[in-house]
Amino acid sequence: MKSNYSYTPSRLDAAIAQKLLVEIEAFNAEYCAVLDNGQVEQWPDFFCEDGLYRVTSRENVDLNLPVGLVYAEGRDMMHDRAVAIARTQMYAPRYMLHLVTNTRVIDQTPDGEIEAEANYLLLQTLVEGPTTLHLAGRYYDRFVRSEQRLLLKERQVIYDTSILANDLIFPV
Amino acid sequence: MKSNYSYTPSRLDAAIAQKLLVEIEAFNAEYCAVLDNGQVEQWPDFFCEDGLYRVTSRENVDLNLPVGLVYAEGRDMMHDRAVAIARTQMYAPRYMLHLVTNTRVIDQTPDGEIEAEANYLLLQTLVEGPTTLHLAGRYYDRFVRSEQRLLLKERQVIYDTSILANDLIFPV
Amino acid sequence: MKSNYSYTPSRLDAAIAQKLLVEIEAFNAEYCAVLDNGQVEQWPDFFCEDGLYRVTSRENVDLNLPVGLVYAEGRDMMHDRAVAIARTQMYAPRYMLHLVTNTRVIDQTPDGEIEAEANYLLLQTLVEGPTTLHLAGRYYDRFVRSEQRLLLKERQVIYDTSILANDLIFPV
Repeated sequence: MKSNYSYTPSRLDAAIAQKLLVEIEAFNAEYCAVLDNGQVEQWPDFFCEDGLYRVTSRENVDLNLPVGLVYAEGRDMMHDRAVAIARTQMYAPRYMLHLVTNTRVIDQTPDGEIEAEANYLLLQTLVEGPTTLHLAGRYYDRFVRSEQRLLLKERQVIYDTSILANDLIFPV
Repeated sequence: MKSNYSYTPSRLDAAIAQKLLVEIEAFNAEYCAVLDNGQVEQWPDFFCEDGLYRVTSRENVDLNLPVGLVYAEGRDMMHDRAVAIARTQMYAPRYMLHLVTNTRVIDQTPDGEIEAEANYLLLQTLVEGPTTLHLAGRYYDRFVRSEQRLLLKERQVIYDTSILANDLIFPV
Repeated sequence: MKSNYSYTPSRLDAAIAQKLLVEIEAFNAEYCAVLDNGQVEQWPDFFCEDGLYRVTSRENVDLNLPVGLVYAEGRDMMHDRAVAIARTQMYAPRYMLHLVTNTRVIDQTPDGEIEAEANYLLLQTLVEGPTTLHLAGRYYDRFVRSEQRLLLKERQVIYDTSILANDLIFPV
């Protein structure tokens, strides 16, 4: 668990970091495409079996209050959450669009666990309404490799934006 | 022609996909630089001779109404359109800036045709005015290779944003 | 010094350009992480000893008025500026988040100096306030290599946005 939003320089050899950077960019593009296309029930597949997903405001992180607004531990809990969302129609229809940039590969342990970050901007368009900056911040990730593929062992989503709690009903 | 905005997982070997990902990122950076710098008459050069350019709202795509607001088939038609824009001064001066992220390489056929996607955000700044979210959405692309270079066989621009028709007078 | 915002096609071999593209993406992610995390005193370390940092509006560039709002020549001058910022508390607390995209590698001289560009969007979130488009535009860069690492010989930050002078007190 990251205790604050401080800068951690990359500790990896540059050539290795750059190879992983492109791989993680590809991973995040797949992850976001699933969410932006509304296939939320496929979202847990990007995590490993006991993966951790947490959403926290940057303010809470800075104050060392790590309790997040959203917390899911393990693919089963994520799946329950995802199905609940998919079957719920209490929110007005909207389009979501993720823009992920500034991918940084910080470290790789000898057993292949990768620490990485990326910035995201999540745009929301209400039907017949404007496109707005819905949420912006940073992913703090730990990846593991399973049968060649990357999987998230942990994704901590930090958001800068001041938001309402129900803005986070969908995974980010 | 894409019939809906559903998620298509990449069918390519990961190493090949990641090499193409960087190549397509470089292509899109060139494409957008030409547009953002106002060199619209060079825009058709990014397409192959019989290339297709189409702009459609996400709502229309979801409703299976594929008729786009803008349609150009072949470099000649694009060129006519581009020259018409370049010579028209009926709009207030503005700066455009593209941000393209989340590039995904989905497939490559044996003869080298590449299917790819990317998310875009187009910012507009009116002179003495604010910078606004002008258009946001996704490129659905088919690339072919001609003398080593990539060229667009088809670029379908989907936008999430609710817009006025004349917002699309410039290529996206 | 760039005299206008015109499009310069890449003059590099595509394979070399794509390798450098990923390296520069990694550099920019580090550069922005330092700024977004408030470690402004580390900012001069991304420049070479006599590096140049300049911020100019796109309008001034188009009118051939290259005098920028902000100008720093050499790491010492940047350091003085950075320390002054770090010790100043006259502005309301805010979070900054950079999104850098559309990296283009334009040229590399025989002695290894690299000319590159990238688009940026800088988001600002005031505490308890909204997230806004603070500044958007393009980096025009010249990199040199020092002990394997890239360093900025020159970063010219062009912004499209109409802004107030004190919006630029922090490095972009």
